[in-house]
Amino acid sequence: MSQSETSAAALPQGIEESFLKLKSASRLLRRLGAEKKNQVLSRIADAVLRESDVILQANAEDLARLPESTAPAFRDRLTLNTKRLEAMVESLRQVAALPDPVGEVLEEKTLPNGLELKRVRAPLGVIFMIFESRPNVVLEAFSLAFKSGNAIALRGGSESRATAGALYRLMGRAIGDCGLDPDVFYGMNDYDRHLVSLLLERQDLIDVVVPRGGDRLIAFVQKQAQMPIIKNDRGLCHTYVDSEADHAMAVRVVTNAKVQRPGVCNSLETVLVNKSIAERFLPALFDATVSSGLQWKCDSAALSILQKERPEGRAKFQQAQAADWDTEHLGLVMNCRIVSDLEEALAHIDRHGSRHSEAIITGSVEKALLFQAEVDAAAVYWNASTRFTDGFEFGLGGELGISTQKLHVRGPVGLRELTTPRWIGTGTGQIRP
Amino acid sequence: MSQSETSAAALPQGIEESFLKLKSASRLLRRLGAEKKNQVLSRIADAVLRESDVILQANAEDLARLPESTAPAFRDRLTLNTKRLEAMVESLRQVAALPDPVGEVLEEKTLPNGLELKRVRAPLGVIFMIFESRPNVVLEAFSLAFKSGNAIALRGGSESRATAGALYRLMGRAIGDCGLDPDVFYGMNDYDRHLVSLLLERQDLIDVVVPRGGDRLIAFVQKQAQMPIIKNDRGLCHTYVDSEADHAMAVRVVTNAKVQRPGVCNSLETVLVNKSIAERFLPALFDATVSSGLQWKCDSAALSILQKERPEGRAKFQQAQAADWDTEHLGLVMNCRIVSDLEEALAHIDRHGSRHSEAIITGSVEKALLFQAEVDAAAVYWNASTRFTDGFEFGLGGELGISTQKLHVRGPVGLRELTTPRWIGTGTGQIRP
Repeated sequence: MSQSETSAAALPQGIEESFLKLKSASRLLRRLGAEKKNQVLSRIADAVLRESDVILQANAEDLARLPESTAPAFRDRLTLNTKRLEAMVESLRQVAALPDPVGEVLEEKTLPNGLELKRVRAPLGVIFMIFESRPNVVLEAFSLAFKSGNAIALRGGSESRATAGALYRLMGRAIGDCGLDPDVFYGMNDYDRHLVSLLLERQDLIDVVVPRGGDRLIAFVQKQAQMPIIKNDRGLCHTYVDSEADHAMAVRVVTNAKVQRPGVCNSLETVLVNKSIAERFLPALFDATVSSGLQWKCDSAALSILQKERPEGRAKFQQAQAADWDTEHLGLVMNCRIVSDLEEALAHIDRHGSRHSEAIITGSVEKALLFQAEVDAAAVYWNASTRFTDGFEFGLGGELGISTQKLHVRGPVGLRELTTPRWIGTGTGQIRP
Repeated sequence: MSQSETSAAALPQGIEESFLKLKSASRLLRRLGAEKKNQVLSRIADAVLRESDVILQANAEDLARLPESTAPAFRDRLTLNTKRLEAMVESLRQVAALPDPVGEVLEEKTLPNGLELKRVRAPLGVIFMIFESRPNVVLEAFSLAFKSGNAIALRGGSESRATAGALYRLMGRAIGDCGLDPDVFYGMNDYDRHLVSLLLERQDLIDVVVPRGGDRLIAFVQKQAQMPIIKNDRGLCHTYVDSEADHAMAVRVVTNAKVQRPGVCNSLETVLVNKSIAERFLPALFDATVSSGLQWKCDSAALSILQKERPEGRAKFQQAQAADWDTEHLGLVMNCRIVSDLEEALAHIDRHGSRHSEAIITGSVEKALLFQAEVDAAAVYWNASTRFTDGFEFGLGGELGISTQKLHVRGPVGLRELTTPRWIGTGTGQIRP
């Protein structure tokens, strides 16, 4: 589709040119072999180690600019140190070691007329990644996009601009040193929100947009974008503890899903407990989590059990409000509801889940299979923690994010998920009768 | 995401209720086995044959309501007859005969901690199909959606309302006769465009919208929809005739791609001819297509060759205007441009192609492989006609349309393409360390 059809307001000329260069570079990337791509990734990894002082100094600048009132969690996400740089380097080397998804043949058939058909993976083209705060996203996103043959524009938050700038310069040099066009990526340093709006209308320049950040960023991109989105939305994850659950396992798994790292999207928000076991299970779960400082938001039935069985914990229990069932607490707060049976648990998850990760703890094969078949989420677990939904854990070589949408990709977005299968037909002059 | 977050203006209550029923029905469909689904399809097929008089009478009503001035092609698309009904029945039986994609295992792995992971196909949920004129879309879309476990809302054009209504009634009865809830589909008979706008904001009710029709419908849906789209956009298809082409084959394939059925999306709009063979090839192509009445829109070089070599055809040649290279003529009009080499052909296709179907005619393996690797389209052919891009031809059991987008599906949209792979994890109490 030509630009004139799709774009109303004009982009600043420099930005337009950068995206046009990105688009040309994406054509060259389609042809680039795995060896060259791995060489670039390895060279960037070397440069990160060699120039770690420069990166850390830029990061110190960003940190110094933060207002005093900045939340510690936010400051922590922005902070780099030697250990985090080493993890970034390790991640680059892992992506280099993974097989190149481009050209992978997914299906082959020969039609009755002799036409040979193959379904083959190809890059998506130009990816526009909009992210908040964490500067390690720069290398993670670039490496996955590049290895899967895509050009990428990166637009981070203004808080991390010095760190991101140092990384962009280092990446550009490493790519150039390998004899490649540095226009395979574009690190934006213009943080104007209106500019992002204009870009989100340019489906002639951008094949897919990937927002990674809070609810407001996602909602903004979803409203504005005229091109497809790979959405890394929130995780409102449940675990249903069935009447036939192994109690010790249920306590261990729910505790892990809730308290091991409560600030991430695959952590648990709501535990649903079968009424027949609630009196035994809830006190045990309370005892296992009490040292973490967990706060409970309970329905009336759960509240009365806990108040009766663990009166000393009274300060930690509250009556849940209607909004709690739809709230991603992202902290040491857990919703708890008692349900009569599996059907009631399924209905609750269908209504309140965010299609991310859901689990059932049960000894019943029948109930587990029904749960796994029916729950409409990216990952559905039986007797395991929701915390496993992760690109590295799944062996996908990192992730651009975790998709809660249904089209194109669900769950961790790895190399393969940044490609698209095309049909390749090879004939001897076949025509359609 | 809850409704309150996503919806501003309210839907009429009856419509809201119908979509809520559709959503509940989609949960039941996830569990429905292949046998039951096939029974329903077969029962509908029987009913179409048995009640063909009723359907044809309703169709006659629709046709009688058309204004005198209606274009013959439009009237033809709306018209049903016994032969077309039989084709619809045959299509229903073919879909019933195809394997059920739901539950298909795409990948299996066991993590080092013993957690078993499977990637399994599941239905998308609720599909909203908006189509124009052709009433056979009702059964084709319903059968593919239903067999792949999806609930579907169908909203056709008001011109076909009597025919569609007859089909909806028959489908509802057949589904009920099989003991199933007829709410697995919703045949809308409200043709208010504002209502469609309101629905396109309701991502809480609709998982994916599929527009099938002209440029204006697609643009409208793309602008309004807050949920993902499977886009059946236009086909601006090219064939590049290389210097190393077999001339007779090139003439046969290009003629087929252009004139065999010029009104469809996989027909050819532009032939690109290598300059070294143009003087020999163009007159031969002219001779092969002249009886069809084909009109040529040529660049200057092609025009002067044709005027010199085939002066008697002068009335059929015109200088191409800039807009022609971006125009889907959908008729007996062909663009023709002479290019210096493969790179120029690739650049032209990259700029003007609609990512649908593209072809190269050449005897060179090297050039063919480069063309197939680089051209960014849903289907890329070597020595074959672009007309093959079709769900039935590809053995996919029909199609909901042909996608020109890159995310989720490219090319024909069959049963598998109406599913989404989820991750299913089965453990023995694994937790994340």
